[in-house]
Amino acid sequence: MDSAVLLDLLGNENRRRILRLLSHKPCYVTEISEYLGVSPKAVIDHLRKLEETGLIESHTDDRRRKYFHIARDVRLEVNVSRHGFGTKSAYPANPSLDIQGRCPHMHIDLELRSTGDGAGDDRDTDDGAVRSGRGGHADADAADAADAADDAERDDRREDGDDDRPDELAALAAEFDELQDLENELSLAQRWVHGRMADLLDRVNDRLGVDADSRFYAKLLAAVTSTDGSHRAVVEEVDADSEAVEDGLRRLADADLLAREAGRWRLVE
Amino acid sequence: MDSAVLLDLLGNENRRRILRLLSHKPCYVTEISEYLGVSPKAVIDHLRKLEETGLIESHTDDRRRKYFHIARDVRLEVNVSRHGFGTKSAYPANPSLDIQGRCPHMHIDLELRSTGDGAGDDRDTDDGAVRSGRGGHADADAADAADAADDAERDDRREDGDDDRPDELAALAAEFDELQDLENELSLAQRWVHGRMADLLDRVNDRLGVDADSRFYAKLLAAVTSTDGSHRAVVEEVDADSEAVEDGLRRLADADLLAREAGRWRLVE
Repeated sequence: MDSAVLLDLLGNENRRRILRLLSHKPCYVTEISEYLGVSPKAVIDHLRKLEETGLIESHTDDRRRKYFHIARDVRLEVNVSRHGFGTKSAYPANPSLDIQGRCPHMHIDLELRSTGDGAGDDRDTDDGAVRSGRGGHADADAADAADAADDAERDDRREDGDDDRPDELAALAAEFDELQDLENELSLAQRWVHGRMADLLDRVNDRLGVDADSRFYAKLLAAVTSTDGSHRAVVEEVDADSEAVEDGLRRLADADLLAREAGRWRLVE
Repeated sequence: MDSAVLLDLLGNENRRRILRLLSHKPCYVTEISEYLGVSPKAVIDHLRKLEETGLIESHTDDRRRKYFHIARDVRLEVNVSRHGFGTKSAYPANPSLDIQGRCPHMHIDLELRSTGDGAGDDRDTDDGAVRSGRGGHADADAADAADAADDAERDDRREDGDDDRPDELAALAAEFDELQDLENELSLAQRWVHGRMADLLDRVNDRLGVDADSRFYAKLLAAVTSTDGSHRAVVEEVDADSEAVEDGLRRLADADLLAREAGRWRLVE
């Protein structure tokens, strides 16, 4: 879903209240209207906007009354910063995604007891996952995964009762607790990255003697060092307009930070 | 900053365009008006709203002309889900925060070469950080941290030239690259948690035979298992209204999932 469309929708308090209500339970228009203290006509207007974007959908019950519910989960992130304004929206990832293989800069440590298909197990069955970690850490990671699998097994044995229903419920409750903790930790980690990034880009500014577009210059510098330094490779790496890249590189050269030799840019040493 | 206030501000396309422009460079009203193709009067109105919340601020230059810039970095997250509607906004965390100590469910693996005060070093100087990890993993973590520190040192030596300015720039570019990767991985991890959480709460619904408020019930179940099961402890743990908690616990008891003995709730075995 487009972030701008989502932000337009979420910019209205009554629409936010409708979404909050529908996230608790599916509702009829009359219920929503009463809860919000807003006319049915206005509610229908909000519902139409929400339905157009696919965020909610309607069904009719056996008495042919129309009710609404949330159609699709979606997640939005917005970063407002002196160094850039970024929005990102996305649907949830598939729970069986090999998250560890996709995240070489972090190791997720969960005991997902209710399913047995947690991060640890993913890595056991997917060779690529451990290898995509960094060099010497792979062994430690593999050991961690084995530990986690052992722990999970022990826990399962310990809690097995005569009836497996309550056990399953306890496992669901425990997994809920862990996922909630991880959710909070990931948010905190992103705030930390945000802070470090702002700090870093302030230093890039200082280094460059500019007061604008530090993120773009940092991208250019990173692209020059991580590619062969040809114009084409840098443009591809930063995924920006060719002229803007040329202009940016020239400015960095004017500041004696870059030099071009045989058509390739490099940091000045 | 209040999430609702932030969403109200971001719900307007011209205000988003103003923020994007100011994130590149500080601007005068006339510049913004020309860039947006919107009357200065309308721009001033938007700027006033943005300034009232502290998101932007103004200064006057030496010719006494007023210019605007982003005053404070802020980050917003919104989760729209069948299982809950959540918004969260926060300022960046301090870059020197002991992020590893605060995130026991994950291990962050960065080589922050430009500063030497990265995640690895934080853990070396803060005893609490490693201990807050989980049991047997602490040793592996400590070894990783040492590895990372060694790598960083080697890299520094390898890249040390006659002049240390270009080296610093290369380190900044490399750190920028790593932070950007980590940012993307954290977003993906959050989408994965979102997906797993939705999956889990669907299963809680199935198990409970309800079609509403699964997140609340999951919280209650988790609170009953992680506390002594007294009404007071459960209320404190879920941080909700005492009557709503009592009502929810009774419903779970009616479904034969909970039982109360001597004033304490427990899962039915």
